[in-house]
Amino acid sequence: CSSTTPITATLFPGDGIGPEIAESVKKVFTTAGVPIEWEEHYVGTEIDPRTQSFLTWESLESVRRNKVGLKGPMATPIGKGHRSLNLTLRKELNLYANVRPCYSLPGYKTRYDDVDLITIRENTEGEYSGLEHQVVRGVVESLKIITRQASLRVAEYAFLYAKTHGRERVSAIHKANIMQKTDGLFLKCCREVAEKYPEITYEEVVIDNCCMMLVKNPALFDVLVMPNLYGDIISDLCAGLVGGLGLTPSCNIGEDGVALAEAVHGSAPDIAGKNLANPTALLLSGVMMLRHLKFNEQAEQIHSAIINTIAEGKYRTADLGGSSTTTEFTKAICDHL
Amino acid sequence: CSSTTPITATLFPGDGIGPEIAESVKKVFTTAGVPIEWEEHYVGTEIDPRTQSFLTWESLESVRRNKVGLKGPMATPIGKGHRSLNLTLRKELNLYANVRPCYSLPGYKTRYDDVDLITIRENTEGEYSGLEHQVVRGVVESLKIITRQASLRVAEYAFLYAKTHGRERVSAIHKANIMQKTDGLFLKCCREVAEKYPEITYEEVVIDNCCMMLVKNPALFDVLVMPNLYGDIISDLCAGLVGGLGLTPSCNIGEDGVALAEAVHGSAPDIAGKNLANPTALLLSGVMMLRHLKFNEQAEQIHSAIINTIAEGKYRTADLGGSSTTTEFTKAICDHL
Ligand SMILES: CC(C)[C@H](C(=O)O)[C@@H](O)C(=O)O
Ligand SMILES: CC(C)[C@H](C(=O)O)[C@@H](O)C(=O)O
Repeated sequence: CSSTTPITATLFPGDGIGPEIAESVKKVFTTAGVPIEWEEHYVGTEIDPRTQSFLTWESLESVRRNKVGLKGPMATPIGKGHRSLNLTLRKELNLYANVRPCYSLPGYKTRYDDVDLITIRENTEGEYSGLEHQVVRGVVESLKIITRQASLRVAEYAFLYAKTHGRERVSAIHKANIMQKTDGLFLKCCREVAEKYPEITYEEVVIDNCCMMLVKNPALFDVLVMPNLYGDIISDLCAGLVGGLGLTPSCNIGEDGVALAEAVHGSAPDIAGKNLANPTALLLSGVMMLRHLKFNEQAEQIHSAIINTIAEGKYRTADLGGSSTTTEFTKAICDHL
Repeated sequence: CSSTTPITATLFPGDGIGPEIAESVKKVFTTAGVPIEWEEHYVGTEIDPRTQSFLTWESLESVRRNKVGLKGPMATPIGKGHRSLNLTLRKELNLYANVRPCYSLPGYKTRYDDVDLITIRENTEGEYSGLEHQVVRGVVESLKIITRQASLRVAEYAFLYAKTHGRERVSAIHKANIMQKTDGLFLKCCREVAEKYPEITYEEVVIDNCCMMLVKNPALFDVLVMPNLYGDIISDLCAGLVGGLGLTPSCNIGEDGVALAEAVHGSAPDIAGKNLANPTALLLSGVMMLRHLKFNEQAEQIHSAIINTIAEGKYRTADLGGSSTTTEFTKAICDHL
């Protein structure tokens, strides 16, 4: 598609600060002239009074039809028997890879200024199987499931990502010295895929060592691919290196070409509705969505406007040490466009 | 025991650089007048020609009898069917808690200068069960086992440690939002123990969030207690914050009062025998052993000598950016005593 064909994209503002930061994205996208029409659906912890559901069929169908969407934070419904809505969406939409680029933001100082890596997380199985039971009183077990199909699929995605994004190296993260069969299968699949990409350097790094190297010298890494739980852990660690989940975007890739970009921070109920939230993670996730749609020009414009606004430092939300409201910060970004 | 009663302690120098760094410990301990007699046993990847074994009965008996020991790095024997010797020792000696103090070394600069925390890792079960199997071709599973007994035991140790070491807070690290039964049981046990220590603040932190907070602000943490794999990951992450496994000590606590202090870095075969190895981790582990034996005076003396030698910077091994040999660095420490 070219940058002038209008596209319909699903928008799940989510809970807590979700609606405010979604408002910010809509504002910025409109200002940048992005030809997107939003199809907005509520998915979150409040029960839809019509359907008595947290997650309606229409919401899911919207993403399946549009094949592209943007999602704010969703809290987990309280009470027994409720699975996290995030997990439910991953499952229902078969979102098999979670991609999180993580880079030092020019102008926002942390202890690291040399981070530029991508974590690619298998998003459907592993330790997230949900299979757990009590063997006898006081002895419980949970099952970690690794399949050849899901491992190959995420490995394929990682290498293709590396190739199409000019990346040089893919590191598979594992603990196959302990979980020889499960993580061993994951590695075997990565190796198989690696053979098809001789131009990409492939390496395997044990997760404990990986975490140590990440905090010592994150510049050692480029693209990282890994099973579900390791991805959960390492992607948050990496976000921490550059300032936290409020600043890092993410995109979930599904079968049939579905892409659901997502801010992975919480819904921050304490500041919800107060015009204090930082919309950066959702905005940058929106930029990932635009790149996925090949709206590259607008993606770069918006990206620069966000980065420059933060770098200038005049308008920053409280979490970044400033005192701007969400709307002031958003306006500053629009002014940069 | 008082500081003048001689004690017999087991010493496993281990593989690779193990013998050289063990030599350094013996030298420093002798210089400091520590009343310890070492009972040295070889445990490592080379097969004992007499017994055709990697690990003799006598070696295990030595620790069981002395109830205290110091262990260098051991590589994992190559070939099928060999379990890591580290794991075998943990199992055979029922070493249920792995304690790793992690603190910024004055004078050795990293990106962090405010780290002072203790990770306490359950060392016997969890993801290390060794139970894995193929369900059908291309589908494998591994079992994570959490028991009430092992969870209570390590939680008890963590709270007792906090209390006896003047620590204020214990954080239980988990992923009970996903593994509700297994990590849920672990948390339940921690809560039970926490009730007996009203003077210690107790909190629960999800592992992904914990890793993010650790890299953003490690000063938030004090004592951390967690299941096996999380401990493996987080203890290495924390070591990375202060310079890596070459600088951080560790001690394994077993039933029946056994304490096996251990350098957890690798055997570094590339520099083995070249007088280049950094003995700091083994030396500091030795200091932990001395504290365990209540040889507090010598422990503090040796500790200061190590810290001061590193801080002065005149004698440092190559991994710390210096050009001293192991023997020069060791001599410098002895000169500080
Ligand atoms: C909220 C939680 C279930 C989720 C996960 O564990 O995957 C979150 O940490 C994430 O990374 O999206
Ligand atoms: C060598 C390996 C089996 C071991 C572990 O995973 O426990 C190591 O990483 C450690 O932390 O002692």
